[in-house]
Amino acid sequence: MFKKRYSRPGTAPATLNPLPSAAGTPVLRFMEYGPDHISESVIRSVSELPAEVMKGNVLWIELNGLADVNLLKALGERFNLHPLALEDVLNVGQRPKFETYENHLFIIAQMIYNEGTETLCGEQVSIFVGENVLISIQEDHETDVFEPVRQRIRVGGGYVRKMGPDYLAYALLDAIVDHCFPVLEIIGEALEEMENEVLNKPNPRTVGTVHNFKRTLMQLRRFVWPERDVVSAMLHSDSQVIRKETRIFLRDLYDHTVQIMDLIEAYREVTTGLFEMYLSSVSLRTNEIMRVLTVISAIFIPLTFIVGLYGMNFQPTTTAGDAAPANMPELHWKYGYPLVLGVMALIAAGQIYFFKRKKWM
Amino acid sequence: MFKKRYSRPGTAPATLNPLPSAAGTPVLRFMEYGPDHISESVIRSVSELPAEVMKGNVLWIELNGLADVNLLKALGERFNLHPLALEDVLNVGQRPKFETYENHLFIIAQMIYNEGTETLCGEQVSIFVGENVLISIQEDHETDVFEPVRQRIRVGGGYVRKMGPDYLAYALLDAIVDHCFPVLEIIGEALEEMENEVLNKPNPRTVGTVHNFKRTLMQLRRFVWPERDVVSAMLHSDSQVIRKETRIFLRDLYDHTVQIMDLIEAYREVTTGLFEMYLSSVSLRTNEIMRVLTVISAIFIPLTFIVGLYGMNFQPTTTAGDAAPANMPELHWKYGYPLVLGVMALIAAGQIYFFKRKKWM
Amino acid sequence: MFKKRYSRPGTAPATLNPLPSAAGTPVLRFMEYGPDHISESVIRSVSELPAEVMKGNVLWIELNGLADVNLLKALGERFNLHPLALEDVLNVGQRPKFETYENHLFIIAQMIYNEGTETLCGEQVSIFVGENVLISIQEDHETDVFEPVRQRIRVGGGYVRKMGPDYLAYALLDAIVDHCFPVLEIIGEALEEMENEVLNKPNPRTVGTVHNFKRTLMQLRRFVWPERDVVSAMLHSDSQVIRKETRIFLRDLYDHTVQIMDLIEAYREVTTGLFEMYLSSVSLRTNEIMRVLTVISAIFIPLTFIVGLYGMNFQPTTTAGDAAPANMPELHWKYGYPLVLGVMALIAAGQIYFFKRKKWM
Amino acid sequence: MFKKRYSRPGTAPATLNPLPSAAGTPVLRFMEYGPDHISESVIRSVSELPAEVMKGNVLWIELNGLADVNLLKALGERFNLHPLALEDVLNVGQRPKFETYENHLFIIAQMIYNEGTETLCGEQVSIFVGENVLISIQEDHETDVFEPVRQRIRVGGGYVRKMGPDYLAYALLDAIVDHCFPVLEIIGEALEEMENEVLNKPNPRTVGTVHNFKRTLMQLRRFVWPERDVVSAMLHSDSQVIRKETRIFLRDLYDHTVQIMDLIEAYREVTTGLFEMYLSSVSLRTNEIMRVLTVISAIFIPLTFIVGLYGMNFQPTTTAGDAAPANMPELHWKYGYPLVLGVMALIAAGQIYFFKRKKWM
Amino acid sequence: MFKKRYSRPGTAPATLNPLPSAAGTPVLRFMEYGPDHISESVIRSVSELPAEVMKGNVLWIELNGLADVNLLKALGERFNLHPLALEDVLNVGQRPKFETYENHLFIIAQMIYNEGTETLCGEQVSIFVGENVLISIQEDHETDVFEPVRQRIRVGGGYVRKMGPDYLAYALLDAIVDHCFPVLEIIGEALEEMENEVLNKPNPRTVGTVHNFKRTLMQLRRFVWPERDVVSAMLHSDSQVIRKETRIFLRDLYDHTVQIMDLIEAYREVTTGLFEMYLSSVSLRTNEIMRVLTVISAIFIPLTFIVGLYGMNFQPTTTAGDAAPANMPELHWKYGYPLVLGVMALIAAGQIYFFKRKKWM
Repeated sequence: MFKKRYSRPGTAPATLNPLPSAAGTPVLRFMEYGPDHISESVIRSVSELPAEVMKGNVLWIELNGLADVNLLKALGERFNLHPLALEDVLNVGQRPKFETYENHLFIIAQMIYNEGTETLCGEQVSIFVGENVLISIQEDHETDVFEPVRQRIRVGGGYVRKMGPDYLAYALLDAIVDHCFPVLEIIGEALEEMENEVLNKPNPRTVGTVHNFKRTLMQLRRFVWPERDVVSAMLHSDSQVIRKETRIFLRDLYDHTVQIMDLIEAYREVTTGLFEMYLSSVSLRTNEIMRVLTVISAIFIPLTFIVGLYGMNFQPTTTAGDAAPANMPELHWKYGYPLVLGVMALIAAGQIYFFKRKKWM
Repeated sequence: MFKKRYSRPGTAPATLNPLPSAAGTPVLRFMEYGPDHISESVIRSVSELPAEVMKGNVLWIELNGLADVNLLKALGERFNLHPLALEDVLNVGQRPKFETYENHLFIIAQMIYNEGTETLCGEQVSIFVGENVLISIQEDHETDVFEPVRQRIRVGGGYVRKMGPDYLAYALLDAIVDHCFPVLEIIGEALEEMENEVLNKPNPRTVGTVHNFKRTLMQLRRFVWPERDVVSAMLHSDSQVIRKETRIFLRDLYDHTVQIMDLIEAYREVTTGLFEMYLSSVSLRTNEIMRVLTVISAIFIPLTFIVGLYGMNFQPTTTAGDAAPANMPELHWKYGYPLVLGVMALIAAGQIYFFKRKKWM
Repeated sequence: MFKKRYSRPGTAPATLNPLPSAAGTPVLRFMEYGPDHISESVIRSVSELPAEVMKGNVLWIELNGLADVNLLKALGERFNLHPLALEDVLNVGQRPKFETYENHLFIIAQMIYNEGTETLCGEQVSIFVGENVLISIQEDHETDVFEPVRQRIRVGGGYVRKMGPDYLAYALLDAIVDHCFPVLEIIGEALEEMENEVLNKPNPRTVGTVHNFKRTLMQLRRFVWPERDVVSAMLHSDSQVIRKETRIFLRDLYDHTVQIMDLIEAYREVTTGLFEMYLSSVSLRTNEIMRVLTVISAIFIPLTFIVGLYGMNFQPTTTAGDAAPANMPELHWKYGYPLVLGVMALIAAGQIYFFKRKKWM
Repeated sequence: MFKKRYSRPGTAPATLNPLPSAAGTPVLRFMEYGPDHISESVIRSVSELPAEVMKGNVLWIELNGLADVNLLKALGERFNLHPLALEDVLNVGQRPKFETYENHLFIIAQMIYNEGTETLCGEQVSIFVGENVLISIQEDHETDVFEPVRQRIRVGGGYVRKMGPDYLAYALLDAIVDHCFPVLEIIGEALEEMENEVLNKPNPRTVGTVHNFKRTLMQLRRFVWPERDVVSAMLHSDSQVIRKETRIFLRDLYDHTVQIMDLIEAYREVTTGLFEMYLSSVSLRTNEIMRVLTVISAIFIPLTFIVGLYGMNFQPTTTAGDAAPANMPELHWKYGYPLVLGVMALIAAGQIYFFKRKKWM
Repeated sequence: MFKKRYSRPGTAPATLNPLPSAAGTPVLRFMEYGPDHISESVIRSVSELPAEVMKGNVLWIELNGLADVNLLKALGERFNLHPLALEDVLNVGQRPKFETYENHLFIIAQMIYNEGTETLCGEQVSIFVGENVLISIQEDHETDVFEPVRQRIRVGGGYVRKMGPDYLAYALLDAIVDHCFPVLEIIGEALEEMENEVLNKPNPRTVGTVHNFKRTLMQLRRFVWPERDVVSAMLHSDSQVIRKETRIFLRDLYDHTVQIMDLIEAYREVTTGLFEMYLSSVSLRTNEIMRVLTVISAIFIPLTFIVGLYGMNFQPTTTAGDAAPANMPELHWKYGYPLVLGVMALIAAGQIYFFKRKKWM
């Protein structure tokens, strides 16, 4: 969960190590679009990319999958991407960040998916933004959250076709950030169920589950918190690449990240509350069990002593045959048995009264 | 409770989605007032609004209810409201915020109502402030806290008729913020009752109730904290729309938000204290129960052993008929029974003395 | 305790509502003093105030008691006090604050009294500082902490007669702030007693008392913390009213507020520690009680079983009259009884050894 | 422990009250030194001080003991020390601070001694630094940590003789700050012992001891934290008195204060950990004791019931003399006794198996 | 663990005390390299160092081991190293720091090794960076993490041979910082094992182990947190020595330190969670044991009372020989025994039903 890929300590910086876990062939495709024009295709190599981008158009290159380091290197050479940035692309599990290089901006974000309510996984998305080009690189070549953006570009209308690669970067980040809302909604519902469970039938599994929620929210925070900083840094960046028109959208996106952080913090407080409730629920149950045991024991222990007393075998005669009238004369009383029964009933009644007053019964 | 409406991830920004839960027809009305003039009416469509606002007058348009997206769009077109702001109007449950757009200010606030002592609900109020116009949009078309403000405008006198839409915005925010005081007063009284309950008769429901208070206060804080920032941002905004005369009132309003935050924090500490007191109260009761059980058990267990001892059936003769004088001669002692009673009384007295010294009795 | 007076939500700002709880006639008096001159008198109405203040003199007007709103209004008109400030004077329980108005400074402070060791009460003091006039308004007309200041003015000597109303404001604040030291000293002593009590004889009342201390300290902090900000704001204010010579005294006063905050924080940590010690003390006592119960039970339960065993009535003959020599032959052994006593002594000794080794005895 | 001397609230500022607890005659001495010259002597009154300091020389005046207020006043007059500063000298237990007065700097520091491992005491050291004079005033006239500094001055060599009073102030602060290292070392060793004790044989005294450590560290932090600010303020002060050459030493001293704060924080976390370990250790022991009790009780309670069963006296004949063969025929079975022993052995074995599986044995 | 070497309080600053624990002869070697040239050798004394460094070349001097103070002094004289810096080199256990001296930069870092999963040790590395020279001094002469850097210099290619001593400093720090990743990976895996252990078979050792992890992470944070500040200070330093080309690498290194802090904080939260889980796991087990004890006791205690009752020896005749028919007539009922067995079965069944409903069985 908390793993981050790292190069062997001492490795030269900007070394591109192939990602061992990456499977499947990476998919490379591009989309060139402008206010009145759009073309897209899936390609095999960097050389198939259009040699030039028409004025006013934007070139969006997508590389999905990290299995082919050479493809990445080729991209880097073609668009002058900084080697340190490329290294970060490969060392997945990075903290989201925003960096300004001489001829491009570099953004790392984490796309959050939830598998079940308790497990989250993040997929690293690296975005390079140039003058009229945007390169997005995903860890995996299967699912992503960008399809609605692609559709909006294809359909046209709205803002996306009229604006530059900075707006496209905003749109991609917006899709990533907003995907946290349904993820959090699922967690929120699970937490509400947990609350009922904790109050009504706490069980050993509960602690583990609450703990898992805490970890999930911690993870989420670890990804969203720096994403907020990324958006803020873009918003206040003095780079020419980010145009004034885009900033108003980035401000809106910033608000979304703040709202997500708000929800995460609220949920975290709820999990803390759940744990406290669980602890007190268990200690209350122990208390109740103790009470029952105490009441039953306390009532019967003296009574059992009394019946044991009259089960003793002291004899009315000594070995020498002398009378020993002091030895348990009660056993020979005419109403000894009813008397002892009555005494025991009184003792029990007294104790029950005492326990009732103490509210233990 | 912690829900926030959001657009489907990937939706184009500034898309106005109708609010599914919104019921009832929205109510649109306006009030045009100046130092010596006032007119108000309820209208059906944006076209019925006065075409121009007389110089020195303020036009206050109120839209209560979000069921009609087209009405909202019409308002937006008529007054040049930014689409991103309109989207926020519809996505209710927003964090309070203050944003400056080119030709208007945009404020989101949350009106807090309490339903019973443990549940709060917030109703989003969106306010657009222009040169001589103020548009306030409420989530719901029924209750609101603005009636006293309307009365003050109708009655005249005081400041409101002489000042601009910025003062009106202040007056509305003031009504919203000050409504937290009675809400908090109710919570404060409930907390004091809880304190007595926890100390005197803690019961399983207590934890749940304390937990609910914590959540209510958390919610409240989530709304009031950013409201403070809203007021602070207005106070220090360099927008021309907010006149110098209004700022002194905003400073006063800021103080109110700080005082509310103060109260919320104080109450939060009280709930934490309640939980701790509850825990210690339960553990103390367990301790007391244990003590009673221990004392009773400890006194009677040895006595019960002794009476059991003399209930054994060892025989004074062996099977072969030989005398076995070692077998329980005590049973034939002349004063065996009184002796054993005395020994038991001594043991019990010793234990009682020991427990008294230990302060267990 | 955490109450604050507030105007009904929606009330026009700067509305002066009479204080319902205020009792008794307010007392109005003034003192005019300069390096070589002093006059003072108790008056009935604002019109009796000197029409002009001699050059180089300071006019100190004291209003003690808030029952007469008209008196307050008259004062406000005579000295041009801002209506929002006057509203704050009446809404007692305010957070201490420092505000700059056009022709005067406005300070709210809370005078802390302790009634017994566990209850504190604050009395609001509002101070207006003008060019050569200082108006101090107290909630109540009885006790205050300003008598030593009045004496110093009457006696002359020292700084107070030679300096302006800003120094007088400092002197009043100094008296208010320094009064926290004896209050804290009393709390400190009570806390030390509590520590002994918690360690030696924790009892159910302890938690409530610790909780009360926590609340008292919380209250105190709520008043002192903003008072520190008040002093800091005065110290760094660019108002002409606060002369350079006074600032060195304000710096000293600021140090006092810091030291008080320091003490409060230290005491808060002590109360937290007390609560933890209490909890662990209770759990340790439970543990000790359990240990005694366990040792006694564990030793006697097996022995009681054994004596029960030989109390069984298995017969040496079957119903049919056949010998049943397998039935409890031990009862007829010559040394059956001493043997069983020996076995029980051995068992008890073994258990005692085991418990000693476990350190349970 | 948390006591601070304060003037009676309302006292005029800069009043010098004699310190009641101060005992013994104060010792006044001076040392005048320069690169090639040194003279020192113990004197009786301020008038015996050299009238002038040779150019390039430094005059270090030491006053140890606060019993003589007049001596202090005389010093103040001779060197123009600010009365507010002199008041702070007498009000011992001050927070360390650094203040710039017109013709001197004023430093308060706390010299930390440990008496045993759990008690710390601080002695206030006040330092006035002028152009070519340094006055250090200690609370007490006996022990101090300055002897090595005096030796270094006497011996010469190194920096101290070549530099000004600012360097001397640094040297004194350095001696005070570095004295915290051995104090902390002792605490660190005591904490390590505590850790072993908590894990191996927690006892009631433990909580008190851990609590004491916490308080000691809290105290230490209360003194060291502002001392860090003092050094920082000196380092960044724009006073002419602090020469550039001295600043590099102050930077080094600042590092020392940071390292001490680091150690204190680390130890505080350790004490928190100790308390948690203690709590869990106690609850684990309770658990273990419970387990033993439960196992023994659970095994013997049913067996005791069985033996009690066959100790009943149901008779084979009714009072009327009829046979009642249903009454306890087992007692007359030929192998009744071995059978019941066998049954009990089986029950015990079953329970032992169950408890072993549950890991309770 | 938390130890830091310090000079005796009052020692003159910049005193070089030999390190008592340092063993073995220090190893001194140097490497001179440039884009096209490299030479290295192990030497005995500072005088064997090249007298001049060729233009464009970098001289890297390594001193491993601190046993020889004279060697250090010789280095200091040759390269004008500040005495305060040299003192810090010897006082190992320093907080990482970055300081600018007149003619060199001074960096202290801590190289982290892990010995087993629970123990960390840090080795202090001091680095002086001059115009064309870098001196690195290690506490110990055996292991280090710099071998890959040396290899990269020997092999050439990449950046290292073309850049200055500032890049070399970066490369060394990078090796030190990145070495934390495998250290953390080991801790992460151990924590995951712990989680399973806590949930499935908590035992007394667990608390100690969790506590150890906490301390290890605390230690790690104490070293890494200031290392982040070191990198940040280098990145923003205005020293000429740090060239612009190097800063982009330092930014990358800064990211690494942030990621390590992130991991450490995440792990710390996990250990806190582990402790909470452990506590609740123990209290749940206590609860379960209590439940078993209560059920068994509660069922058998009344039954044992009943069998005791009929074991009493009340006699059908008085001593005087009169009939006492009230004394235990049940013993002579024809079906007394089966009846009492039935009653007991009913009681047991009732209790089992009650406990089942309470979910205690």
